[in-house]
Amino acid sequence: MNIVSPKPIPAVTTGPLPASSKVFRPGTIHPQIRVPLREIALHPTAGEPPVTVYDASGPYTDPTVPIRIDLGLPRVRSQWPRPDGEVETYQGRIVRPEDNGFVSGERLTPEFAHRQSPLRASGGKAVTQIAYARAGVITPEMEFVAIRENLGRAMARAELQRDGESFGAHIPDFVTPEFVRLEVAEGRAIIPANINHPELEPMIIGRNFLVKINANIGNSAVTSSMEEEVEKMVWAIRWGADTVMDLSTGRNIHNIRDWIIRNSPVPIGTVPLYQALEKVGGIAENLTWEVYRDTLIEQAEQGVDYFTIHAGLRLHHIPLTVNRVTGIVSRGGSIMAKWCLHHHKESFLYERFDEICDIARAYDVSFSLGDGLRPGSIADANDAAQFAELETLGELTRIAWAKDCQVMIEGPGHVPMHKIKENMDKQLAVCGEAPFYTLGPLTTDIAPGYDHITSGIGAAMIGWFGTAMLCYVTPKEHLGLPDRNDVKTGVITYKIAAHAADLAKGHPAAQLRDDALSRARFEFRWEDQFNLSLDPETARSFHDETLPKEAHKVAHFCSMCGPKFCSMRISHDIRAEEQKEGLEAMAAKYREGGDLYMSADKD
Amino acid sequence: MNIVSPKPIPAVTTGPLPASSKVFRPGTIHPQIRVPLREIALHPTAGEPPVTVYDASGPYTDPTVPIRIDLGLPRVRSQWPRPDGEVETYQGRIVRPEDNGFVSGERLTPEFAHRQSPLRASGGKAVTQIAYARAGVITPEMEFVAIRENLGRAMARAELQRDGESFGAHIPDFVTPEFVRLEVAEGRAIIPANINHPELEPMIIGRNFLVKINANIGNSAVTSSMEEEVEKMVWAIRWGADTVMDLSTGRNIHNIRDWIIRNSPVPIGTVPLYQALEKVGGIAENLTWEVYRDTLIEQAEQGVDYFTIHAGLRLHHIPLTVNRVTGIVSRGGSIMAKWCLHHHKESFLYERFDEICDIARAYDVSFSLGDGLRPGSIADANDAAQFAELETLGELTRIAWAKDCQVMIEGPGHVPMHKIKENMDKQLAVCGEAPFYTLGPLTTDIAPGYDHITSGIGAAMIGWFGTAMLCYVTPKEHLGLPDRNDVKTGVITYKIAAHAADLAKGHPAAQLRDDALSRARFEFRWEDQFNLSLDPETARSFHDETLPKEAHKVAHFCSMCGPKFCSMRISHDIRAEEQKEGLEAMAAKYREGGDLYMSADKD
Repeated sequence: MNIVSPKPIPAVTTGPLPASSKVFRPGTIHPQIRVPLREIALHPTAGEPPVTVYDASGPYTDPTVPIRIDLGLPRVRSQWPRPDGEVETYQGRIVRPEDNGFVSGERLTPEFAHRQSPLRASGGKAVTQIAYARAGVITPEMEFVAIRENLGRAMARAELQRDGESFGAHIPDFVTPEFVRLEVAEGRAIIPANINHPELEPMIIGRNFLVKINANIGNSAVTSSMEEEVEKMVWAIRWGADTVMDLSTGRNIHNIRDWIIRNSPVPIGTVPLYQALEKVGGIAENLTWEVYRDTLIEQAEQGVDYFTIHAGLRLHHIPLTVNRVTGIVSRGGSIMAKWCLHHHKESFLYERFDEICDIARAYDVSFSLGDGLRPGSIADANDAAQFAELETLGELTRIAWAKDCQVMIEGPGHVPMHKIKENMDKQLAVCGEAPFYTLGPLTTDIAPGYDHITSGIGAAMIGWFGTAMLCYVTPKEHLGLPDRNDVKTGVITYKIAAHAADLAKGHPAAQLRDDALSRARFEFRWEDQFNLSLDPETARSFHDETLPKEAHKVAHFCSMCGPKFCSMRISHDIRAEEQKEGLEAMAAKYREGGDLYMSADKD
Repeated sequence: MNIVSPKPIPAVTTGPLPASSKVFRPGTIHPQIRVPLREIALHPTAGEPPVTVYDASGPYTDPTVPIRIDLGLPRVRSQWPRPDGEVETYQGRIVRPEDNGFVSGERLTPEFAHRQSPLRASGGKAVTQIAYARAGVITPEMEFVAIRENLGRAMARAELQRDGESFGAHIPDFVTPEFVRLEVAEGRAIIPANINHPELEPMIIGRNFLVKINANIGNSAVTSSMEEEVEKMVWAIRWGADTVMDLSTGRNIHNIRDWIIRNSPVPIGTVPLYQALEKVGGIAENLTWEVYRDTLIEQAEQGVDYFTIHAGLRLHHIPLTVNRVTGIVSRGGSIMAKWCLHHHKESFLYERFDEICDIARAYDVSFSLGDGLRPGSIADANDAAQFAELETLGELTRIAWAKDCQVMIEGPGHVPMHKIKENMDKQLAVCGEAPFYTLGPLTTDIAPGYDHITSGIGAAMIGWFGTAMLCYVTPKEHLGLPDRNDVKTGVITYKIAAHAADLAKGHPAAQLRDDALSRARFEFRWEDQFNLSLDPETARSFHDETLPKEAHKVAHFCSMCGPKFCSMRISHDIRAEEQKEGLEAMAAKYREGGDLYMSADKD
């Protein structure tokens, strides 16, 4: 890992992970696409080909790509074909002082210098992936994700494991572009890919695909800067975040977002309400449809790939929260609730939802319909408020689909294990199988400081039951703004949850990595064990704390049990013995002869 | 937290946890027992009584008890009544050089100085809790655990939540001594309590009680010392370990164990096979029944509360492991497999199991029947080898019960989520509802360095399904010997898993702590939030990284969202508004009048 670029260009983390190289697979329908995968090379003694894994890290782990965050990533998608006359370039909105919270001078984060004119749909057309999918068009984005999802499955078909329990998900043996098109057309999956985000490497979110994870970044009024946030994004995708939400709420919000998007190969999500609130000085009741609408266009032009819209929280839901232990814990939900109550009016997000769809379809911004009434404690899980809002989210899903917009649905929150499946089942039923995107859920409230774990348990389970994307929770949840280390811990924890879910669902390629690592473990290929793990650096450093020498990297034991008690070493002796004596023959003898060595008094 | 005692007496961690005091509840049948519970005081503004929680930490958190580990803990159980003529004091076995691996001089850990003559049953009697339970006797141990399990439930009955899914467990509203007696008599629960461990504060393991956790400690041939191991034990119970297994395999094994037991208020488990192997120079095929038997007596006299016995691995099972990805991964299992193969004979543990029972019943050492063939990888989960051994464990359970011995059954290992429940269901069926005691299970193999999390997911789930005790896994699993920090991380992770399981099972008192913490969170009582958490020190330090001032401990926000975006603060505003306008009235208006504010084009 190298830190590139001296000041004044801020540095980010680059370089491949250990033993890893990036490989690219071309498309067939769209030969110009280059789909990145990561190959992890194994020790020659393994006699095994490299292990192919999903790679969300973008060009930062490709040593052949020079990284300068002031220039942004290559705009690869702008070379991809699009039907004629679908989009137009236009002047775009002028950045206003309130977009950055009226900050100026030294405190103003500089604008991203290489601005391009935005694109939008021509003449009210829908330029969304779902619109194309319904029209029977396989876009480059669809072929890209099809190749990406297979993880080199074609080559490994013989080994495929299909013994999972998928709870009604239909995961194919092999993902074709046509399968992707169909899933997007039916609304069961989304490809968040704003036409103004040409730096994007497309990915798909749906329960018939690999379970994805999202990492939240963003400054708050209290702390952090542009440099930190861009590095947090790069850092989060290095460890496997599939999308990143920029939840910034402080000043400089417009310019920081520009830097993040121009440097992001993964979809960027936002909650436009946060910036709209900044524009009205933080006073919820001063929010207006006009300010909100202006913010949607501002962010759509920048290239935000999905918007969280808290349009499901309606005025008559609010009284349902009054006897809750923890009231309303969604920031967006609480802001809208306050607005509704103050004006004693229905939410403008709900009332204007069709107009919001018209904006989204012009840029292909996907919706993440927010759960403003998600439970914030075990006591409030699965209550009337939560489920009433979910019904409204189902209603909004149908409106969005009618407008050719892509939609996913946000879910809880804090839920004890026995109430998790009800959430998934209800969401599938009420929202017509639109993808579910859940925060955790946390399975207990009693461990602040460890909520990546309380929620990782719930995340693995709900991922198994059918959630398409898991929003990470860091150790700092409820306590403070996560730093770089917290981001990494959160991402790795959620990669574990997502992968455990893929295994349990019976994803056909998921177990290949487990098996490769287990073989490495059994054969004392320590380097391979480290390199195949989700976090090779931590695995290696833990091992080396007690056995640092290079010679120990081929030792047939570790410090946990020491040489005499290493069960795996003994297992090897047993196999050697087998070759000598023939265990199979011995077993046969038992099967015929019965209990040769069983003492009479045991039965 | 204070570190007591200057050298040469080794120091251990003492002092209460923040805002916590130890309270003692007396018995009714046995007034001499004093059952410790921990009360966490809340801020006066809460207007709530202290929260009572389970306390496994022993006298170390009691500032009134002087701690000197060279003297050991008070021998409270030796004052408790026992029927006349049941036990006798005798000379006991003389410590031999091989007990400590023939180490001498400076390298020899000193003997624990205050040795007492051991007790054993008189005239072949069974002095086990199950024998008394079957005879209708409610022992002091039974009443002790009954009081301990209730967590002050009697006072909180009005608040009790009973909405869990228990999968056939029968958790009573209130635990009576008679309920404990019945569960022990039926073999559904055990109270590991060697008559030679008078320092013990009894606890119970069974699926109709709180889910328990075990922490492993122990030196290996490669590293660590007596001082470290005693401190690891004290440290593990400080954070909530209910039992501790001493898995030492190096030299000084006898003397280190003496120090641990004499200072342990929780049951100590061991794997006697490890020491037996040390006695024969680490050569599995040189093991004999005589050496093993001698080791059982040696450890029973010291006061070990439960023995892991790998008697379920039989000669004809071994061929079933040959095509596994990771062979045999249990240390005990691999040692016995090697012995069986070398001699081409049935396991002496299996053949002599009735004699082993005769020793155990004379001291009330409980059995933890080892799963020598547990899977060591996702690929090997739930295979023929594992389940064949489980059948034998069921057979051994019935033998132990016939001998009036207490039994629990060890379980896997590495198991993907969709195969976890099959393990629990099979164990209950095959082993007659004897308590299940599982290691994890790990739900994926790809995250060495994070196996507390891969396994915490599986532990929470199998705990929910009915496992009575969860054996922790630390971040160092597969990589090295855990240190103090790893022990704490493992314990906290497993307390989370156990508590999540208690909530999901519908344990009537479990949610009290979640609710108290959530109320504190909602009311911005930061100190209470920290103090009610499983790890107050970490919660506080995470919060204070960005907001260190005392004034921030009553701030109505944290650095995560900042003041303007704090949903909980806004929720308070909403409640204030409610008092002004009457939300309930408003809600009623909606219910009658219908969609007052719904725009026509939405439906």
